[in-house]
Amino acid sequence: MTEEELVSEENQDSSIYTETGAVRQDFLAAIAAAVEDTDEDWLKEQLSHLHSSELGDVIEALPPEQRIAVVAMMKADFDFAALTEVDEAIRLEIVDQLPNNQIALAVQELDSDDAVYILEDLEPEDQEEILGQLPFTERIRLRRSLDYPEETAGRRMATEFVAVPPFWTVGQTIDYMREDKELPETFSQIFVIDPGFRLLGAVDLDRILRTQRAEKIETVMHETRHAIPVEMDQEEAAQLFERYDLLSAAVVDENDRLVGVLTIDDVVDVIQEEAEEDIKALGGVGDEELSDTTVEIARSRFIWLLMNLGTAVLASLVIGLFDATIEQMVALAVLMPIVASMGGNAATQTMTVAVRALATRDIDIYNAARIIRRETLVGLLNGVMFAALIGLVAGFWFDNPSLGGVIAAAMVINMLAAALAGILIPLVLDKIGADPAIASGVFVTTVTDIVGFFAFLGLAAWWFDLL
Amino acid sequence: MTEEELVSEENQDSSIYTETGAVRQDFLAAIAAAVEDTDEDWLKEQLSHLHSSELGDVIEALPPEQRIAVVAMMKADFDFAALTEVDEAIRLEIVDQLPNNQIALAVQELDSDDAVYILEDLEPEDQEEILGQLPFTERIRLRRSLDYPEETAGRRMATEFVAVPPFWTVGQTIDYMREDKELPETFSQIFVIDPGFRLLGAVDLDRILRTQRAEKIETVMHETRHAIPVEMDQEEAAQLFERYDLLSAAVVDENDRLVGVLTIDDVVDVIQEEAEEDIKALGGVGDEELSDTTVEIARSRFIWLLMNLGTAVLASLVIGLFDATIEQMVALAVLMPIVASMGGNAATQTMTVAVRALATRDIDIYNAARIIRRETLVGLLNGVMFAALIGLVAGFWFDNPSLGGVIAAAMVINMLAAALAGILIPLVLDKIGADPAIASGVFVTTVTDIVGFFAFLGLAAWWFDLL
Repeated sequence: MTEEELVSEENQDSSIYTETGAVRQDFLAAIAAAVEDTDEDWLKEQLSHLHSSELGDVIEALPPEQRIAVVAMMKADFDFAALTEVDEAIRLEIVDQLPNNQIALAVQELDSDDAVYILEDLEPEDQEEILGQLPFTERIRLRRSLDYPEETAGRRMATEFVAVPPFWTVGQTIDYMREDKELPETFSQIFVIDPGFRLLGAVDLDRILRTQRAEKIETVMHETRHAIPVEMDQEEAAQLFERYDLLSAAVVDENDRLVGVLTIDDVVDVIQEEAEEDIKALGGVGDEELSDTTVEIARSRFIWLLMNLGTAVLASLVIGLFDATIEQMVALAVLMPIVASMGGNAATQTMTVAVRALATRDIDIYNAARIIRRETLVGLLNGVMFAALIGLVAGFWFDNPSLGGVIAAAMVINMLAAALAGILIPLVLDKIGADPAIASGVFVTTVTDIVGFFAFLGLAAWWFDLL
Repeated sequence: MTEEELVSEENQDSSIYTETGAVRQDFLAAIAAAVEDTDEDWLKEQLSHLHSSELGDVIEALPPEQRIAVVAMMKADFDFAALTEVDEAIRLEIVDQLPNNQIALAVQELDSDDAVYILEDLEPEDQEEILGQLPFTERIRLRRSLDYPEETAGRRMATEFVAVPPFWTVGQTIDYMREDKELPETFSQIFVIDPGFRLLGAVDLDRILRTQRAEKIETVMHETRHAIPVEMDQEEAAQLFERYDLLSAAVVDENDRLVGVLTIDDVVDVIQEEAEEDIKALGGVGDEELSDTTVEIARSRFIWLLMNLGTAVLASLVIGLFDATIEQMVALAVLMPIVASMGGNAATQTMTVAVRALATRDIDIYNAARIIRRETLVGLLNGVMFAALIGLVAGFWFDNPSLGGVIAAAMVINMLAAALAGILIPLVLDKIGADPAIASGVFVTTVTDIVGFFAFLGLAAWWFDLL
């Protein structure tokens, strides 16, 4: 079949996506056929009009060997901005196989923030070689952005922006924009600067449009209270965008000079990434990506599992203290995982809420006391309820009311321990500057396992006199 | 002390936030003092110039009794948009205590999307009473928005927008914007409509500004491929914004008529909410908020813990099958939680990745096979490594190499089960239309507990002939 036959007729002009949001299989099959036939024209015709994020989705959906083939065949028609939309592993895999001079040509077509995004992951030698092939001003701009630390506003900003002096009129500004061909591709505000490039303010475009031509820019500009220092962490910058519903914000250096602009689309990516990081950290996986290899993934998960093995062995040592007790009353071995498991789950609930509240800054030292008190109460309430439930179940199951009483008491103790560990451990980790999302899980379940086994077996040994 | 003394001098004009992003204590203390003294002027002076999101943070940080006092004392100077920035529980607490006619006055000042946000949570009778006090056009607009299902584009859109006919020139459009006082507060694009209000296209403001006045709108507009149907789920709409880096998008009804506009700031909130929902669901907590009461929280977590109790009892039943075995070899009771716990953690890792990939649509039926294969391999790899580790530890600990062999075999089996459960359960839940984030956790740990105990105790009973 030819590529045209593979893409059924009614689909020719429609979306490349299926209803569930995946890239259409017939479209992917047609690309595979075109790669097979080295049909460069078909590839260029079909793929060059796609939005960069659509092209990124197509690249991700292709098998690895076809990805590089598509990029190579499309040559200058391949929109490198698509590479900012794919997994890091895929981006590196493609960029590593391309000659540096092709990359150098391609990044010149990109906005500076996209160019930095692609360059920052490269080996220093490759980076230098590519930068060396760029025109002077672009090289300086990109190198300056790359000099800022990772995950700062300086790394994420675009260095293309529109800036005018405060004494211009609205009319002059509009005329300037009609004539200047070097404007950024899109923008939503104009910055106002003094002769030394120091930021004085900004004007939203809608404000320009509803103002008479004779009006001076300085009378319509607003002082930008939300200028972002170039070294600010990207997560902090994202919080400013959210708090003040910004579409774009000026980025300034330590002398208050305008050096770039951060836009909401970059910030949306940051918000996604940060939420993603928290979810993964809580689930015990690092920064693995779907495109990582089996060995990479196995290795990155190994550390977390190893820590868990450590805590599991600790819990076993606690059980080992009571082996004589268990030998005399095997029902204890049957029931003990219930106490530990309920504690672990209750602690995970509390911890999840605490970690999120810390991430969104909804919790601080002032309301922490109230939240600790509330979590303790919740633990006590649910502890008492589940103690009653499991006490009855265990009492009837083993026809031993005392055993029901012992497991009920252990349940209350462990649910209280779970509440305290779930809230205090994230708070302490945050206080000492560690990421509560990453480390809380291990510590928290260690506490509930050890307290759970110790309380249940210890109470049983004491009550039934079985040590 | 007076309010002025409480707010130290150097802080008078600076941010209301501390470095860590919390509202400053001295500022809150000054508000408390002003409420005590019923100093309405001070409250209006200090709070009416705040951004609505700052005011929202202040309201959240105040004790409950002061919140309503501040709103009541500030009267018409209180910016109701702040209520869209606080927890639902706090919003309801405040709105429930205010007379409906004060709410009716306040919502007239709001953008329609903010007004809907506040009205949608009210009791139907209160909603009707408030709507009844609004001017006709506003009542019709809000009622139409409220008629759309929750969490759809229709609920989140603003009904204020700028629309012009295609035959206008750029100059006419600019003149219209300079004269019309009824424009929305901010906007980043202008829509183009036919006489029947059908959407033809859109023009970004920067495009208007760089085009000569004589040019016709129809020549500079782009056809909006990304118009959003009014019934589209807000999460789907958010994905369109992300994919195409949109700042705003037209919302159209079933006849393609322009009815509203969705803006990126609403979408950022949606993205946050959806990530939040996934994190909470994985952690076993529902839609609780930090401001909920102890009893509400205890109740909402109870269900999840109850399900967990069910699975824990199931696991205990499995152990109960082997009570005779344990009685003869108590080391089994000591070691068995290790096998279950490692399985549980490995499964949680896989499940976390699977749930996220499903949420971001990075996984589908076409690459599912590859990912299942990879997860199985990862489980096998880590299973073999931890089998070797725990086999050695257990063999030496109990001076029993056979016991080491048995636990090693059980570990491989359970890590494989963990990998399969961790990937297959979310996929199946997604397939049958359930939310994989909510339900996966319970099922997955049930599998690893039961397989873990059964494999370890069963193998031990068979190998040592202890049934």
